[in-house]
Amino acid sequence: MHALIPAGGAGTRLWPLSRRSHPKFLLDLTGCGRTMLQATADRLTPVSESVTVITGTAHAPAVHAQLPDAGLITEPSPRDSMPAIGLGAAVLHVRHGTCTVGSFAADHEIADTAAFHRAVERAQAAAQDGFIATIGITPTEPATGYGYIARGPQLAEGTFRATAFHEKPGPATASRFVSDGYLWNAGMFVTRTDTLLDALAELHPEFHNHLMAIAQAWDTAERDAVLAQHWEQLEKSVIDRAIAEPLAAAGRVAVIPAAMGWSDVGDYATLAALTPHPAHREIASSGTWVHADTPVVVVGVPDAVVVQMDDVILVTTTPAAQQVKDAVAAVEEELR
Amino acid sequence: MHALIPAGGAGTRLWPLSRRSHPKFLLDLTGCGRTMLQATADRLTPVSESVTVITGTAHAPAVHAQLPDAGLITEPSPRDSMPAIGLGAAVLHVRHGTCTVGSFAADHEIADTAAFHRAVERAQAAAQDGFIATIGITPTEPATGYGYIARGPQLAEGTFRATAFHEKPGPATASRFVSDGYLWNAGMFVTRTDTLLDALAELHPEFHNHLMAIAQAWDTAERDAVLAQHWEQLEKSVIDRAIAEPLAAAGRVAVIPAAMGWSDVGDYATLAALTPHPAHREIASSGTWVHADTPVVVVGVPDAVVVQMDDVILVTTTPAAQQVKDAVAAVEEELR
Repeated sequence: MHALIPAGGAGTRLWPLSRRSHPKFLLDLTGCGRTMLQATADRLTPVSESVTVITGTAHAPAVHAQLPDAGLITEPSPRDSMPAIGLGAAVLHVRHGTCTVGSFAADHEIADTAAFHRAVERAQAAAQDGFIATIGITPTEPATGYGYIARGPQLAEGTFRATAFHEKPGPATASRFVSDGYLWNAGMFVTRTDTLLDALAELHPEFHNHLMAIAQAWDTAERDAVLAQHWEQLEKSVIDRAIAEPLAAAGRVAVIPAAMGWSDVGDYATLAALTPHPAHREIASSGTWVHADTPVVVVGVPDAVVVQMDDVILVTTTPAAQQVKDAVAAVEEELR
Repeated sequence: MHALIPAGGAGTRLWPLSRRSHPKFLLDLTGCGRTMLQATADRLTPVSESVTVITGTAHAPAVHAQLPDAGLITEPSPRDSMPAIGLGAAVLHVRHGTCTVGSFAADHEIADTAAFHRAVERAQAAAQDGFIATIGITPTEPATGYGYIARGPQLAEGTFRATAFHEKPGPATASRFVSDGYLWNAGMFVTRTDTLLDALAELHPEFHNHLMAIAQAWDTAERDAVLAQHWEQLEKSVIDRAIAEPLAAAGRVAVIPAAMGWSDVGDYATLAALTPHPAHREIASSGTWVHADTPVVVVGVPDAVVVQMDDVILVTTTPAAQQVKDAVAAVEEELR
């Protein structure tokens, strides 16, 4: 398998740790000594022939500095996951002929690497059989913040047909999904390049033509000219909607359930759940999570989150963590 | 009247703005351009022949720098309000003979200076008549954080006999006190020096003897030797308990009710009520109060209080403000 790591997104729910200029995947949020991008590459290297990061021009230098040995595909502008993953797959297809690619987000945390590797191996096997394979996360709670994958009959050991992809549900639906054995959609896809490109040709022929034009020119002197002509013609779309949903309906998607300590580190509540809490700074409070150069003392604010950066201090709580993204636009404007 | 300003106390409920090294009275907490001590002296100057600050050795240089024209009496060590005010009154008595002294805290805020001056004039008149006069604050709510003064029959316009001094009450008692016309005890006392010293001689003869020994030596070469011999012999006590309570029981205390926008600026809740709130830094919150060099963004923490100092950041809320004092001992230890 050739690993693809699309690395984009502003991570506004982790502002101001994560910012446009230094997004989440470039940071060592859990204090493990490696950034989330590096940890993702570390995790993929043992099960991959190559690792290629797909990122925007603004972050390409930082990505290269963090992963000097990884391949790098630089997008001229962000157009969501389908163009990013499609470009990675198409470039590798042109370079190597038909091969298997696996796409994994740059900013997720996985505690159990061995379980992840087992799931990747199963996904590769399903991909060899012509499926689009996805690794689905065994839910630990009826979360409303993730999409869900409906599971059908078993195809092989630990591998099932995926019958449908569902958007983020409400609480009642989420409970039913969990009871019914649905899995969280973590956006991990493994596929043969011909499976993916044929599906694109079938479902999105114009998109396919633009993409292949770019891929064929990628390793040539024509790259920039062809990108200038075709990149903006690629319709913005996400791979779940563009490929996974219609192929699942046609019975061509496999899902491998995995319980591997996965987290999308999506907001301060999930980050606080992953990292240590400095206990000695609380009075009449508990659950404080602090990121600061200066000692922080919290008095009477349960589950407080305090983030001190050079130019701003954020004070919130883990229950309010989802609202942090609402602060970003207004405040970044003001700080400038 | 000669004004006395006892300036002591660590102000732990306003930590870390107020600290042992720079207590509340040395700070311009309300942003008015004058420190609380300076504002107190400014307020007293028009109604006083002289202003004398009584403070500890640690703060004497800062007090002198802030009020170069004020008299200064330096205590060798803090022994609470009775020794401090007693020393001030005794020194002035030795210097000037019998005179009227008024003692006022260094770290209270009074919005209506004209109302304060009217109350001081009435207190001086009562003091001339041989009463210990106190200015009692007309309550604006059934506060449980202040002592109360029970009011008896009227003695003169705006002047009443004080029949008892009560410690901080519970909520039910506080409501009854407010209904019954009791007043908050703000620790403002005006008295002839002979009234006070005679009361001390009568109620606390040993204390009186030590105090007079010190006062008589104060402006002489013997001061340090006499202080060394007598200061630590002065029993620690507060003037309310040592003098005001027993004299009230004997009908010798007058109280002048005053509604003058008084605040003891005792904690972040009262400070926040006095000073502007930067509104643009709140998301899903209201009532934020911030003291910081860095912009602070609050998300989902109602009534948040954020204080950024060089070496510590405090995060609390106005409802939790009374608990800040519990943080100080533990945290100051840790910061050292």
